[in-house]
Amino acid sequence: MAAEPMTESRLFPGVLRAINLGLAMFVEAPQAHGAPVEALDWRPPAEGDREVGLLLARLEDDPTDPVGRVVAAANATALERLLGAQPLLVDVRPAREALGLEDRHLLHSGPPIEWDRMCGPVRGAIVGAILYEGWAAAPEAAEALAASGAITFAPCHHHGAVGPMAGVISPSMPVVVVENQAGGTRAHATLNEGLGKVLRFGAYDASVLERLRWFGDVLGPALSAALRDSGPINLRSLTGQALQMGDEGHNRNIAATSLLVRALAPSIVRTADSATAGVVFDFLRSNDHFFLNLSMAACKSSMDAAHGIPGASIVTAMSRNGVDFGIRLSGTGDRWFTSPVGVPDGLYFPGYGPEDANPDLGDSAITETFGIGGFAMAAAPAITRFVGGTASDALEFTRLMARITLGRNPAYALPALEFTGTPTGIDARRVVDSGIAPVINTGIAHRLAGVGQIGAGIARAPLACFSAAIQGLARSLGVPG
Amino acid sequence: MAAEPMTESRLFPGVLRAINLGLAMFVEAPQAHGAPVEALDWRPPAEGDREVGLLLARLEDDPTDPVGRVVAAANATALERLLGAQPLLVDVRPAREALGLEDRHLLHSGPPIEWDRMCGPVRGAIVGAILYEGWAAAPEAAEALAASGAITFAPCHHHGAVGPMAGVISPSMPVVVVENQAGGTRAHATLNEGLGKVLRFGAYDASVLERLRWFGDVLGPALSAALRDSGPINLRSLTGQALQMGDEGHNRNIAATSLLVRALAPSIVRTADSATAGVVFDFLRSNDHFFLNLSMAACKSSMDAAHGIPGASIVTAMSRNGVDFGIRLSGTGDRWFTSPVGVPDGLYFPGYGPEDANPDLGDSAITETFGIGGFAMAAAPAITRFVGGTASDALEFTRLMARITLGRNPAYALPALEFTGTPTGIDARRVVDSGIAPVINTGIAHRLAGVGQIGAGIARAPLACFSAAIQGLARSLGVPG
Repeated sequence: MAAEPMTESRLFPGVLRAINLGLAMFVEAPQAHGAPVEALDWRPPAEGDREVGLLLARLEDDPTDPVGRVVAAANATALERLLGAQPLLVDVRPAREALGLEDRHLLHSGPPIEWDRMCGPVRGAIVGAILYEGWAAAPEAAEALAASGAITFAPCHHHGAVGPMAGVISPSMPVVVVENQAGGTRAHATLNEGLGKVLRFGAYDASVLERLRWFGDVLGPALSAALRDSGPINLRSLTGQALQMGDEGHNRNIAATSLLVRALAPSIVRTADSATAGVVFDFLRSNDHFFLNLSMAACKSSMDAAHGIPGASIVTAMSRNGVDFGIRLSGTGDRWFTSPVGVPDGLYFPGYGPEDANPDLGDSAITETFGIGGFAMAAAPAITRFVGGTASDALEFTRLMARITLGRNPAYALPALEFTGTPTGIDARRVVDSGIAPVINTGIAHRLAGVGQIGAGIARAPLACFSAAIQGLARSLGVPG
Repeated sequence: MAAEPMTESRLFPGVLRAINLGLAMFVEAPQAHGAPVEALDWRPPAEGDREVGLLLARLEDDPTDPVGRVVAAANATALERLLGAQPLLVDVRPAREALGLEDRHLLHSGPPIEWDRMCGPVRGAIVGAILYEGWAAAPEAAEALAASGAITFAPCHHHGAVGPMAGVISPSMPVVVVENQAGGTRAHATLNEGLGKVLRFGAYDASVLERLRWFGDVLGPALSAALRDSGPINLRSLTGQALQMGDEGHNRNIAATSLLVRALAPSIVRTADSATAGVVFDFLRSNDHFFLNLSMAACKSSMDAAHGIPGASIVTAMSRNGVDFGIRLSGTGDRWFTSPVGVPDGLYFPGYGPEDANPDLGDSAITETFGIGGFAMAAAPAITRFVGGTASDALEFTRLMARITLGRNPAYALPALEFTGTPTGIDARRVVDSGIAPVINTGIAHRLAGVGQIGAGIARAPLACFSAAIQGLARSLGVPG
């Protein structure tokens, strides 16, 4: 609402109340004369693309239009499945077993990509996975093998899995098994390695491989045994609690990690010998991000329940392979809509800068797709502070994301916003209409293989893939465009 | 600042801007005529007590007055010691050993009180402690023994200890040993029993006594052994983290409890057999309030370092025995200033109401004395919500407490207030001057012995004991009053 007017004008007798659309400079003249001006943050839909703008209009919720009715009903169903998701952590199994992943097959983050287009950190992680599996004995041989065509690559998303950063999964790696009880969907993710030199940022030295072996030999089996003793862990309730404890479920996971350790501790000591339990607790104590991969698998299992509903404009995956940013809509099935991906806006470790950074990477944007991570920034003001922002900026990010989402998820309440639910269910129509790009909290990898993490920050999804997805959705509904 | 005026008045040509002091009804007339009125929340100092008001004026920081110089310097020293406190959890030992507590001696919360004046829940806890120690075999005999004069009672505060609610400590109970490394002060507290039927709320049935025996036989020794293995736990850093995770260190302790469990888990499994470690983790998993007593001991060890500085008007203890509310100032040494204590404003468990409630109780207000708990409410909006308030109310409580404190503690930063430190170091002068009573988060006990907790809520300290303390401080400085 405009403020009360301060002055009367001779040209406009009575009261002048101005609303400005478009160029900000038009605000200046009336303001200089003391008139209150509301500057409306308006941009033409679809960044001014007339064709997409017309398609958008056809896809609007309109009860008088058969297409509009289909889209509205499809989104309502999708949102209901999203809000009803009940992800449970049920087990930890080798990927070979849980995903049916065969020898010489590797999964990676993001939309599909072949070896010759892959970025440095993904290549590094692939080299590490080949060495870990013993398919080659040295990095050069591993690289040659990968380039030879003898290894089959596929996105994690094509196998009911998600991976942070490079997201490489090989058959022997243990993966968490998360079952969305309400949706009947299952999702998987590797175990989180912690910070420093880690495979997911493209490092593959001896310490990285040793940790992966310990995951397969000790940590994975110990967690699996503990989960059989404890029964499934309810990740919806655990994440809901963590959002009231400063986590946003993507870049801050200390609360959820601590709650998980406390929940599993009795079963860990009941099922492992003391020495094993000791090293497992040592690792879990040192890794504040352990819960990240569970959070991702929980979000994936929830999004998959909302996927594949004809006509639904809800985004069911956002993901990056370090070269392309890709999204999927519920209504367009397994097709990816991609655009080139940029470098996040972030804070770098000493000695590094944006020129060292790889473009944004990882399946972890599944958390934002679900409505946590950057969408729940109000829960974790520490993250905006990390990149020079304030607690108010954190609230603003969440409020902004509410403009492109279908609803609020009351199971994930935000204390700083009077316990309203986090905005959830990105509507591709609203992204294209408003030009508001989804915000994604992320880590930053060095662009070269073998180096690792060099920072963390905030990325925005590229708008072009949302426009492409809207065109795809329109075609799937027979709307001429 | 007043808003811009909306109307012009014939009586006051130009602009009428009103500021109202005192009765709120005077605001109505000018407001009815459209004039902006700022209502100043002002009350006469010392609730209008002229004598105390004049003493207050003499105790103000005034570089031209020798008394004012002493008070200012003394408070500066006290605040420095408070901000510099480094509380470490070093051990868990029986009270007999850690406090030199002898047979037939019992400690209780609050200022001194004799058996015949004690409230129901404290009597209940004393009966429980006598049964636990085996000094009597049945509740009636325990009560008779307590009334006979054969038991010596003293406040926890007189023995370097603090106890939540009834706060009863007997020689065989294990207590945490917290050492403030910077101040050379030590403080102690019992182990937290969890919710439900517990001694601190005055219950003493078989389940209560069984838990106390398990504390002495199993939990205390297990934690002691684990702490020898892990080394001291830094409670300053742990509580600082927990305040960024939705805890306020008094009525919400889930983050700190979870962080503590994660920190101690490796050492627990290294020093206890599997069966013991299992039941210890079971108990710690079920008790979200386990950290409360550690928080209290940390605050006590910090406040004691700021105690005993001649002239200092900083409050070093606030405490209640269910009959009297008592405070101590740094500058008036071990003397208590007391007034009758009221029933907290709270939410009751089904079947109970204010008529069942005991007046406020416990040493736990040491957390507010230190600047967390109710003073850090901005960290834990869930608590105001619990009594029907909002997240904004939580910020308001913290802002209000900043008006009666000497400084901010940057080690305990509040995310929702842009990471400013929690207001710390209650200045008795400011409390009396402003009439703003310290806010205290608290539990509510049934007024009868043996029943237990019936609710939780928010209490305000009675102003009268602060006025009495100011008079005591003035006398100690030779100010005639």
